[in-house]
Amino acid sequence: MTDPLPAGATIGILGGGQLGRMLSVAASRLGYKSHIFEPGAAPAGDVAARVTQAGYDDLEALAEFAASVDLITFEFENIPAAALDVLSATTPLFPSRRALEVSQDRLTEKTFLADLGLTTAPFGAVDDASGLDAALARIGTPAILKTRRFGYDGKGQARIMTQGDAAAALATLNGAPAILEGFIDFSTEISVIAARGRDGQVACYDPGENIHQNGILAATTVPAAIPASLRTDAVLLAARILNALDYVGVMGVELFVTPAGLVVNEIAPRVHNSGHWTQAGAAVDQFEQHIRAIAGWPLGDGARHANVVMENLIGEDVARVTEAAARPGTQIHLYGKSETRPGRKMGHLNRVTGPAG
Amino acid sequence: MTDPLPAGATIGILGGGQLGRMLSVAASRLGYKSHIFEPGAAPAGDVAARVTQAGYDDLEALAEFAASVDLITFEFENIPAAALDVLSATTPLFPSRRALEVSQDRLTEKTFLADLGLTTAPFGAVDDASGLDAALARIGTPAILKTRRFGYDGKGQARIMTQGDAAAALATLNGAPAILEGFIDFSTEISVIAARGRDGQVACYDPGENIHQNGILAATTVPAAIPASLRTDAVLLAARILNALDYVGVMGVELFVTPAGLVVNEIAPRVHNSGHWTQAGAAVDQFEQHIRAIAGWPLGDGARHANVVMENLIGEDVARVTEAAARPGTQIHLYGKSETRPGRKMGHLNRVTGPAG
Repeated sequence: MTDPLPAGATIGILGGGQLGRMLSVAASRLGYKSHIFEPGAAPAGDVAARVTQAGYDDLEALAEFAASVDLITFEFENIPAAALDVLSATTPLFPSRRALEVSQDRLTEKTFLADLGLTTAPFGAVDDASGLDAALARIGTPAILKTRRFGYDGKGQARIMTQGDAAAALATLNGAPAILEGFIDFSTEISVIAARGRDGQVACYDPGENIHQNGILAATTVPAAIPASLRTDAVLLAARILNALDYVGVMGVELFVTPAGLVVNEIAPRVHNSGHWTQAGAAVDQFEQHIRAIAGWPLGDGARHANVVMENLIGEDVARVTEAAARPGTQIHLYGKSETRPGRKMGHLNRVTGPAG
Repeated sequence: MTDPLPAGATIGILGGGQLGRMLSVAASRLGYKSHIFEPGAAPAGDVAARVTQAGYDDLEALAEFAASVDLITFEFENIPAAALDVLSATTPLFPSRRALEVSQDRLTEKTFLADLGLTTAPFGAVDDASGLDAALARIGTPAILKTRRFGYDGKGQARIMTQGDAAAALATLNGAPAILEGFIDFSTEISVIAARGRDGQVACYDPGENIHQNGILAATTVPAAIPASLRTDAVLLAARILNALDYVGVMGVELFVTPAGLVVNEIAPRVHNSGHWTQAGAAVDQFEQHIRAIAGWPLGDGARHANVVMENLIGEDVARVTEAAARPGTQIHLYGKSETRPGRKMGHLNRVTGPAG
């Protein structure tokens, strides 16, 4: 294997939120400096060597940022193509544009997964009312209509419980290209945090079991209460996705557990909220793993040595953090956001519930 | 209990080396910003919101620093008294000056420990040749002559194996006030990382077993291979020290295991190299624990959920870090120091060897 990026080098991180913040800290542990690019407030800037505050349409700022760093990564997938053109003209970007392009568009992503032979929810493209009718005729109700791009945490989505909901659902999307997805009858949602190195090495963490509230991840528990065979299936499936994309970095793969096996819900080409438990339960957490992958280090093996429950602190939840800190085995992660808003991720707790078992 | 320091507040850290760097990261996890004060190069600045580069004799810079932060802590104990006067005039300092004064001077420290009823090496003050003769007559050889102040990592020390070494040993100290300490015949050196909160709550981590090379800590292993009764003794003894000082923060207590029980080697009023294993083996590591203590949070309970070997990367050791990263369960911590020098701590590895047992 070749040598990793030398110590003292600078990693550019697109996005200054909590994921950028924790990536910056991980980069420091591997001897790197970080430079954050963020149009808005950047809590990551408190733990970074440098911050550029500029928009993704400021091509000059992007070019200057790219020239000042040794490689670029990101905390979110919705980076405009024109910005990527400028950045990648001078500086390596990991994960690659291909991974971004696949995951930026729900239709492209579902098509990619289906082409790989993986099971997804039934889906169909929806560009207008007649397209929606055709998709509903094939997929049936209940179903969920989603914008193809820019949705997250339940935004840009509308449920269609009966045919009569269709017109109203379409109206909420304001004409954005969309995808209709059939409902999946699942017992559990799990996710696999998987990593692939620049040399093609793959490592996965033990799947975590997720609970959502109001479309936002509320908690992840490891180990997930699933049979060992499903854990193996989940890990092999994640590895297939990473290899197909020639992926470099950490990816979050969300899966539904159904009577017929695993169904892929979605992939995120970045560190993932459902992988925060690794900070307390694995020697190499997902943030260090991502930096290792993109900077050309050997990957951590992903072994889990503790049972952990990760709980998000959303909006006013953060008010109970002092009390939570007094519970045994509770690790605190606050994101340094100055304003508490409903639905906003303010921090998380990792509660170690015992040695791995 | 009262409320902790509010999120968004700034913690001032005296010292920008690796301990300051890891304290700054821990402060960020609790929602705080950090401001580093450091006369020289400050690797901690890469993960801090602000850095002041100035000397400890620059009273104006110190006053400005103190006024810009909500409380002050430190990564090393040798802070000049005049600097402490300026800092503490406006801003709370934790741990307190009393703890600093005790630990800045080996003679004061040993006297304090002996007055508490704890066992130390036999010791005597040495101000000149006749004082050395008197101390040698009482303590015997082999013994070790140390400067009372400013020694670390084996610096400012000379061994006296026979009476004939005395004059040469004294000469190496250049007339600095000194202490003669008798040798201790010990089987093992252990250390307890202990914390005390602003409300008087005390929490200790499981003692680690230390190996030194050339006077510098090389490795710490948890659990230490000692009987359970000695672990209890070690923890009770550490708690007695913290309570006697009305201490706030994390302290490292180094102990010798001897046939006659535990002997206190030295105390360090700060996070301690032998506590770095907590980053991989405890939900709340010593850095978060220190910030919790000084900022008024409930302490973590110190429970250990993994077996860990911490190895320092000293000088050219750092060249093998990529190889080490490939070993299972190995967490990397590089300190961002630009120059590798013999004897310089460049980083450390935490290797998880299994779930706690």
